[in-house]
Amino acid sequence: MSRHAVGIDFGTESARGVLVDVDNGRVLASASFAYPHGVLDRTLPGRADRLPPDWALQHPGDWLEAADTLLRAVGAGGRPEDIVGIGIDFTSCTVLPTTADGTPLCLVPEFQAEPHAWPKLWKHHAAQPYADRINAMAAQPGGEFLALYGGKTSSEWMWAKGWQVLAEAPAPVSRAMARWIEGGDWLVWQLTGAETRSACQAGYKAHWQKDAGYPVEEFWRALDPGLAGLRGALGRDPRPVGTRAGGLAAPWASRTGLRAGTPVAVAVIDAHAAVPALGVHEAGHLVMIMGTSTCHLMIDGQRRPVRGISGVVEDGIVPGLFGYEAGQASVGDIFQWFVRTSVPSRYGEAGVFERLEGEAARLAPGASGLLALDWWNGCRTPLVDADLSGAVLGLTLTTEPAEVYRALLESTAYGTRRVIETFEAGGVPVVGVHACGGLAERNALLLQITADVTGRPILAARVPDASGVGAAVYAAAAAAGGTDMTGVIRRMGSAERVIYRPDGQARRVYEELYRDYLDMARYFGEGGTGVMKHLHDLRRGAT
Amino acid sequence: MSRHAVGIDFGTESARGVLVDVDNGRVLASASFAYPHGVLDRTLPGRADRLPPDWALQHPGDWLEAADTLLRAVGAGGRPEDIVGIGIDFTSCTVLPTTADGTPLCLVPEFQAEPHAWPKLWKHHAAQPYADRINAMAAQPGGEFLALYGGKTSSEWMWAKGWQVLAEAPAPVSRAMARWIEGGDWLVWQLTGAETRSACQAGYKAHWQKDAGYPVEEFWRALDPGLAGLRGALGRDPRPVGTRAGGLAAPWASRTGLRAGTPVAVAVIDAHAAVPALGVHEAGHLVMIMGTSTCHLMIDGQRRPVRGISGVVEDGIVPGLFGYEAGQASVGDIFQWFVRTSVPSRYGEAGVFERLEGEAARLAPGASGLLALDWWNGCRTPLVDADLSGAVLGLTLTTEPAEVYRALLESTAYGTRRVIETFEAGGVPVVGVHACGGLAERNALLLQITADVTGRPILAARVPDASGVGAAVYAAAAAAGGTDMTGVIRRMGSAERVIYRPDGQARRVYEELYRDYLDMARYFGEGGTGVMKHLHDLRRGAT
Repeated sequence: MSRHAVGIDFGTESARGVLVDVDNGRVLASASFAYPHGVLDRTLPGRADRLPPDWALQHPGDWLEAADTLLRAVGAGGRPEDIVGIGIDFTSCTVLPTTADGTPLCLVPEFQAEPHAWPKLWKHHAAQPYADRINAMAAQPGGEFLALYGGKTSSEWMWAKGWQVLAEAPAPVSRAMARWIEGGDWLVWQLTGAETRSACQAGYKAHWQKDAGYPVEEFWRALDPGLAGLRGALGRDPRPVGTRAGGLAAPWASRTGLRAGTPVAVAVIDAHAAVPALGVHEAGHLVMIMGTSTCHLMIDGQRRPVRGISGVVEDGIVPGLFGYEAGQASVGDIFQWFVRTSVPSRYGEAGVFERLEGEAARLAPGASGLLALDWWNGCRTPLVDADLSGAVLGLTLTTEPAEVYRALLESTAYGTRRVIETFEAGGVPVVGVHACGGLAERNALLLQITADVTGRPILAARVPDASGVGAAVYAAAAAAGGTDMTGVIRRMGSAERVIYRPDGQARRVYEELYRDYLDMARYFGEGGTGVMKHLHDLRRGAT
Repeated sequence: MSRHAVGIDFGTESARGVLVDVDNGRVLASASFAYPHGVLDRTLPGRADRLPPDWALQHPGDWLEAADTLLRAVGAGGRPEDIVGIGIDFTSCTVLPTTADGTPLCLVPEFQAEPHAWPKLWKHHAAQPYADRINAMAAQPGGEFLALYGGKTSSEWMWAKGWQVLAEAPAPVSRAMARWIEGGDWLVWQLTGAETRSACQAGYKAHWQKDAGYPVEEFWRALDPGLAGLRGALGRDPRPVGTRAGGLAAPWASRTGLRAGTPVAVAVIDAHAAVPALGVHEAGHLVMIMGTSTCHLMIDGQRRPVRGISGVVEDGIVPGLFGYEAGQASVGDIFQWFVRTSVPSRYGEAGVFERLEGEAARLAPGASGLLALDWWNGCRTPLVDADLSGAVLGLTLTTEPAEVYRALLESTAYGTRRVIETFEAGGVPVVGVHACGGLAERNALLLQITADVTGRPILAARVPDASGVGAAVYAAAAAAGGTDMTGVIRRMGSAERVIYRPDGQARRVYEELYRDYLDMARYFGEGGTGVMKHLHDLRRGAT
């Protein structure tokens, strides 16, 4: 008798569902669903008003439609009675204001035209001033929590985004905001009928710690009395990942053909879900989930404050262990941006990436004379600064698109090396570097360059839909009582790897270029010049 | 009875000829001729070997074919007996090695495969190490001449390019190089049958001064004994512009239908020829010839050493007066590069510039958050450094092509402002700013941005083919005995202007952005970091 788990991975532009055999991790069925509204970064649906720069929203109706479609689609890959559990992973911090009963404010007719009523997507970056004000309080009573988050909160996270709503939304909107909740937790609420917060989301994005809870009310009150109220809107007692949140509610069961009461696991952040899918359950192994952005995750038995990383949270990846997170705020997004905005028509419409990769692969390191800073979406690790921006140096009249493309790949590899060095400088040694995600499957040149730049073998997993498979692993663990996550990972995780080994000659050139990259990163990002901040301020002021 | 002068303007990609009424400057006929071989920056004709980076060559056969075609074409616009003279202007320093009888070495069969046998185009940039070594000798005996050239010779000029041939060409090539001659002077030689050097080319590009001649032999000998020989290959006694070099040789006359013996004027640099065409004959008026690069010219009764400009030369623009030259090594070239390499297919194939300009014109200053350094072809004024390169800062995932395009326009306007400030810091006040050339005719947005950035009205002339008309002015002056250039300018020059006035609000934002530009320029170009040089060295080393 086979036993199956469903995983649904809610990404930035689409969601994917998988049906996985809990005994061996084999994927039995999969399906995908593109969000009809995509990313709302220009206007709200049906409105002409231009959203301000740095805004990125989503439509919660897209998530419900995705869940409905994908549960039905992958559920049909086996018998409903064989499904032991449902797990979901979600982008984070993607967060929305709801009423006390979980109704998104953006679906309340009177608030539909108000941008702050809509879910703020993880890459919504307009809350930097609020993050700055929180960070300026790090030395105040109650500010000690920041040490576990690399020293800084991020404009991408719960508190800065929530404060932006309190400060900028019309009063009726902020008054109506009874809950301030991650998209993943909200979806679990919809599926089970009860609000259950995840230790993963709460830990990494709302600064909750198992031993200390959320940062103390006095800290928030000193910044803005409204923040004490926001703290109350976050929900209590987040639960470890890999445990049961509730059972599938009857209306969902009847719509999707699944059994009512099928266990639904606590939500998990999409990147974090990839760790068990890759079979990683030991300290020292860095898992890079390489997609629009790249997330870097490690687990360890000890909790160490590491300056510049995103955070360290107990129960956040594997129950009972500490999970570390760091990140690069844009990776694949940069390459997509380049192809969308900067590749001439002679490259044609189809196969542009393949042509660029082919041409770029023939270039020697250093031959283009180009150097880029990979900050198109700000710098997450180690600078935690969304107001920084990308740069390309070394342009000449003979610079070709494939040269710029390669320089962009290289810039993200420099960023990856800096993340690894940040972990090690903080006392967390990195013994293996694993890669998964869309870029790890498609972009061999990027993986080779990352090996050459970091001087380390890159172990590329072959797990399509790693996050979705990981969500299914959490579902299986939850269904089994939530006590043997490591055993479930051993059974379901994939050990298969393609290894990219560093090339000696390339490595020598990249040693030099990486020093140049660090010079530039320090100059633009760490006080050498205020030009990037000034450009950002002018941009914000002009629009 | 009407009297006509012919002007032929030899540009980078093509040549244009005009037939001009010497009494009023009216253009009676014009024609153009695209060089069949264009710019040789990848391979030599008929060969597969890739030229090194920074190389740019031309084919002298193209020039002869252009002269032949254009003399015939514009000559046919009137009666041969009405043509009082022929003037030619030429890109500079475009320079070639020839035998003693003027045969280009690249047309000698045994040397055809040797890149150093070919004419080096003005924008050939591979001679920077030689320029560096000359500049390092500025304080040595005989090095005083550099003070009149902004303190530095350029890799674009006669000495650095010539030294590169001596040092790098196979011995038979450098031994065969009896003459080292500007393309313009070489063409006058072909047309008249006798070698006549121009004070304009010799003054600006070979450091000749009327009172001191070429830099002394001892100076060159201390660098490389071969340079003393190069000095001998330059030709003696350069003649003032606007004077007669000789008469049209019989074979040319019979081929083109013009009269043998028609006076041919001393050659002039293309940019410099625009000054008389714009009717400028007074001190304090800056003429910008805005094309692939921009040249900035002024005339004055006094000779002042100005640090950072290209040079000051007596008889170089108007006989008896001092002409100042400064420059931006790439302007229109940057915009062409952008359209060629960086504009996506949705902009279509035709009308791309118009669409970009339309979109860019709707953006407010500062709204893009972008800042560019206009050094795609190095920095001429004030840094005189061809190894510098372009940069774009402030890129984000929402950056659009029109925003980058506008940032490139702005960067060249910052460069222009820096040129004006360089003149004024050197004691040469700028009272009026005139623009001509292809960009001044086509790119209203660039002119408006230049007005906003400089805070000065830009007076755009409406003289298509200004350099060609200027060449005709010099021809008319030469035909009239070469003694009343100012009178000829008054008759033939155009006073018509379209005025672009600075906008107060834009000007305030650009004051801030210009300070950022200066910060970046100083950091990357004046010792703040060695990164750009290092990138250039890696690029040179890798290829």
